[in-house]
Amino acid sequence: MIQEKIAKANEEAIERVLNAQPTLLAIGKAEKDIPGMTKKTVLHAGPPITWENMSGPLKGAVIGGLIYEGLARDEKEAVELAKSGEIIFDSCHHHSAVGPMAGVVTASMPVWVLENKTFGNKSYCTLNEGLGKVLRYGAYSQEVIDRLKWMENVLAPVLKVALELSGPIDLKTMIAQVVQMGDEGHNRNKAGTSLLIRELAPYIVKTQFTLDEKSEVLKFMHSNDHFFLNLTMPACKCTMDPAGGIKYSTLVYTMARNGTEFGIRVSGLGDRWFTAPAEIIDGLYFPGYTTKDANPDIGDSCITETTGIGGFAMAAAIPIVQFVGGTPKDALNYTTQMYEITLSENNAYKVPALNFRGTPTGIDIQKVLETGILPIINTGIAHKNPGVGQVGAGLVHPPQKCFEDALEAFVEDIEKTN
Amino acid sequence: MIQEKIAKANEEAIERVLNAQPTLLAIGKAEKDIPGMTKKTVLHAGPPITWENMSGPLKGAVIGGLIYEGLARDEKEAVELAKSGEIIFDSCHHHSAVGPMAGVVTASMPVWVLENKTFGNKSYCTLNEGLGKVLRYGAYSQEVIDRLKWMENVLAPVLKVALELSGPIDLKTMIAQVVQMGDEGHNRNKAGTSLLIRELAPYIVKTQFTLDEKSEVLKFMHSNDHFFLNLTMPACKCTMDPAGGIKYSTLVYTMARNGTEFGIRVSGLGDRWFTAPAEIIDGLYFPGYTTKDANPDIGDSCITETTGIGGFAMAAAIPIVQFVGGTPKDALNYTTQMYEITLSENNAYKVPALNFRGTPTGIDIQKVLETGILPIINTGIAHKNPGVGQVGAGLVHPPQKCFEDALEAFVEDIEKTN
Repeated sequence: MIQEKIAKANEEAIERVLNAQPTLLAIGKAEKDIPGMTKKTVLHAGPPITWENMSGPLKGAVIGGLIYEGLARDEKEAVELAKSGEIIFDSCHHHSAVGPMAGVVTASMPVWVLENKTFGNKSYCTLNEGLGKVLRYGAYSQEVIDRLKWMENVLAPVLKVALELSGPIDLKTMIAQVVQMGDEGHNRNKAGTSLLIRELAPYIVKTQFTLDEKSEVLKFMHSNDHFFLNLTMPACKCTMDPAGGIKYSTLVYTMARNGTEFGIRVSGLGDRWFTAPAEIIDGLYFPGYTTKDANPDIGDSCITETTGIGGFAMAAAIPIVQFVGGTPKDALNYTTQMYEITLSENNAYKVPALNFRGTPTGIDIQKVLETGILPIINTGIAHKNPGVGQVGAGLVHPPQKCFEDALEAFVEDIEKTN
Repeated sequence: MIQEKIAKANEEAIERVLNAQPTLLAIGKAEKDIPGMTKKTVLHAGPPITWENMSGPLKGAVIGGLIYEGLARDEKEAVELAKSGEIIFDSCHHHSAVGPMAGVVTASMPVWVLENKTFGNKSYCTLNEGLGKVLRYGAYSQEVIDRLKWMENVLAPVLKVALELSGPIDLKTMIAQVVQMGDEGHNRNKAGTSLLIRELAPYIVKTQFTLDEKSEVLKFMHSNDHFFLNLTMPACKCTMDPAGGIKYSTLVYTMARNGTEFGIRVSGLGDRWFTAPAEIIDGLYFPGYTTKDANPDIGDSCITETTGIGGFAMAAAIPIVQFVGGTPKDALNYTTQMYEITLSENNAYKVPALNFRGTPTGIDIQKVLETGILPIINTGIAHKNPGVGQVGAGLVHPPQKCFEDALEAFVEDIEKTN
């Protein structure tokens, strides 16, 4: 009886995921476009967290965000302000947004605006800053702030007009293509970045900005193979949101980390987070760094795995093993294993090396606990101190406790209802 | 003794292939840049052929080329001129050039200019016209001529200046990347076209052409996933040329077809062509067409297979099977089989799905005849009549006779020498 209800609810949930039509609409501004944003709101990746409990890179990004907004002049002022209670900290996920790594979003930041055309819900994400010392890894030096200002004043305005000229871009089709081109949409976005550039370049050219500005914009995108990550993430976010809140569904519609805790949300359990301490990542470290330097797992980027790409599509992105470790065979095995904990195979994202089988899509907490198989996540590794940046990339799992607690709550809910 | 000499010669030949540094330098003009071109020269794909023996699509392309040059006003005049003996027909390969399908090059056409930086030799190829009714498939209607004129007057000048601004582009590195992104460089060039666009777009923007012209150029490249083919081909051409003319080497340094005959050239046998009737292609036909409509195998594009990409790299481009037929397993098998007839594994072009093994590179006529395995070629299929265009894509082999005749000549040569 209950199992039937669960099966039916999960069918409904996965149908919504598979029928999603994530579409890039426009460039907006956080304060104006993201629901509930104020001048003193700071959104961050992962489940909600207080300033005191934030990890190094998240604290660094908050400091940078407050300086960028002109709310603080330096680190000292920013820390005081952050502690003062004047700042509203909240999870990106509570505002239809997602952010890689620290995931900090403040009022003036430009954001990609997406819509799931099937259900009409929107999603938002900042623009990718590139590699090296960047806010999302907790850096907040002058060069970081200057780059964010350039993104606000040049990059975003150029892309905004280019998008107005091009019209909306169907991201489901684009992601389906990049999965044929060696990307998994989380830690490898070289094809996606390339497709986005070729799609927008004819319209960037046509804008009335100076030739130098337009050239800088194209060079900036070209210099950063992760530029497309900040589009796969909100594409997955607006894909998953309509699958939340379906009574009896055991589908995981959110996985996210704030650098301290890993949190999941389950469709039938609504907005409740189930959290546990985030894990240290097993991966390849850049020269000079070891696991001792690593911050625990951080960022909203595992929304990609929640939607059946990222680590779940590793078999489509074999070259990723050169970045996160392992062999091509491992890449095939990871994807194959994920079929055991998911509700369906993707109808759009297909793996060439697995005979064009759809990627494993829609994590079911029941299957995770029955099999003991935890979701696999491809991810970047942040230094534990603010301001240092990325120190490697690798593979990580969510803590099993998140799934155990969720199932326990699920059973309690059912008992209450009956 | 002789086997030692052959082994040493082949070692030298394959070293030259592996050490090549194909580099895009500039856009030039056939008449000015290609050695030996005149106003009345028409270069074509494959081994030399007379007007009388040309197939439908090659005749069509010659007619189009003569109209484009203003040497004839219409088909009738063009045919008369072609028959008159006034036109010098010659193989692209005799002029350091290559051309896809009919491969017709005439005096006014813009060409990519490449250099093999290791050996200083150049190579040339026209710019890809896109799909549909195009000269390389033997179409010569007004729209075809108009497009060629636009390419001469807008596309090439814009790209020429953009390349001057960007500086030379290392194509070996770029091809190495696209082989990680699902391209095999012959029949799948989506990643290559994308990488070329993102490389050039920042400089196209900076040129002083009108915004509309620059936008048209970017749209034209974006609309044609084969745009990069006309760079992989001359990259392979300038890679292979220094490996020709090495006494005792049994390496195949040219494979090419003119639509009537397939021809190969072998390093130790210098400039001699070994030809046999070209075969009909086994492939997937576009709706409404069958093998009855197909012209025999045509074009210089199998220079890619000669260099270890194209069909030899199918395992790196599994999605190609959706275009040429077969299964992902077939794609892996084709590449694996080619190791049996080649001298080496590529040092730059690596196959993710085969644990990053280098592609099979350098066809050895001895190995072909010992094993009975013929090279595998991915290719487009032209309609046998001029003006129709592409009717499908598929797989084809060179005729075994080319290899038999070459080996016979090789043995004769040795006997003469000793």
